[in-house]
Amino acid sequence: MPERGETRRRLVETTAQLLQRQGLNGTGVLEVLRESGAPRGSLYFHFPGGKEQLTVEAIDYSRSVITAWLRKSLDAHSRPGAAFADITERYARRLERSGYTLGCPIAAVALEGTPLSDNLRRASEAALAEWEELLSGYLAERGLGADRARSVATAFICSLEGALMLARARRTAEPMRAVGALIPALLPGS
Amino acid sequence: MPERGETRRRLVETTAQLLQRQGLNGTGVLEVLRESGAPRGSLYFHFPGGKEQLTVEAIDYSRSVITAWLRKSLDAHSRPGAAFADITERYARRLERSGYTLGCPIAAVALEGTPLSDNLRRASEAALAEWEELLSGYLAERGLGADRARSVATAFICSLEGALMLARARRTAEPMRAVGALIPALLPGS
Repeated sequence: MPERGETRRRLVETTAQLLQRQGLNGTGVLEVLRESGAPRGSLYFHFPGGKEQLTVEAIDYSRSVITAWLRKSLDAHSRPGAAFADITERYARRLERSGYTLGCPIAAVALEGTPLSDNLRRASEAALAEWEELLSGYLAERGLGADRARSVATAFICSLEGALMLARARRTAEPMRAVGALIPALLPGS
Repeated sequence: MPERGETRRRLVETTAQLLQRQGLNGTGVLEVLRESGAPRGSLYFHFPGGKEQLTVEAIDYSRSVITAWLRKSLDAHSRPGAAFADITERYARRLERSGYTLGCPIAAVALEGTPLSDNLRRASEAALAEWEELLSGYLAERGLGADRARSVATAFICSLEGALMLARARRTAEPMRAVGALIPALLPGS
């Protein structure tokens, strides 16, 4: 049943895109259906839990996409300063390509969804934890103590999330590049 | 007409609070009226531009509240590392006191509102620019070159905004404290 899996995947990907562009409450299921070109009945067929279930799956999907995206820079650079600067530069270019409309789907959900649903909060938390784990593991392998590796990873994720937000408000990737220029000073061997 | 000014002020402050808790699209004008205890007709009397005008004024109000909040730490500490660490620690305590519900009203608007209204984007941009000016001016007075002062100020604001978001998703002030522990390393005399 490739068709069915394909529709499901399109619904999740479209939701992940719309969350980045217009946030959680700004994204309605009718718009997800329209943008994804999926038949109307398919949404509740694939996601009996409705918008909440769809959003949780969009977060889980974005978690793994962003993990792979981060891993690409880590695999390409053995020096932490170069790897982290590469992540910010790739984000800066992505912002420019999208006209500063793309950001992080998890940020929008965390800012709007926290009082609404613990399922959304937990999915966001799991995504942030996975990225922190990946970055702090990479830093620990390169000689940073475990506590410092975790602090640097957390602070870097904070900086990225904030820079994505500032870039949208200002329509420039300059905040992301400011983070990229400074973060290597916190890292060994850069 | 103190009554009239008082109602107007309450509407703006309530909007600023609700934006932090539940975002832009999650905050309806009826809820603003209910939470502020203002009479129903007062909203369009004071804000003929409706929700957009009210939101722009809530952003402008938050801009000056947060500028004063930042200035308090800068005035209390002549060493940049101590001043910036004080800002993060005060934010961490505010997050804890609010049960991780409070964040930044501008972040929510920037993530949800960018494609909707250029007035909202411009108000957000002006707030971010005012804070950057304040922080970079303080750093430049303490010997940082103008370009570096601006980069550090921008990256610090990114870190704060991201840490507010992560703290909401994780229900802990630990990301804010991670930023506070690392940022002094980027600053002179800390």
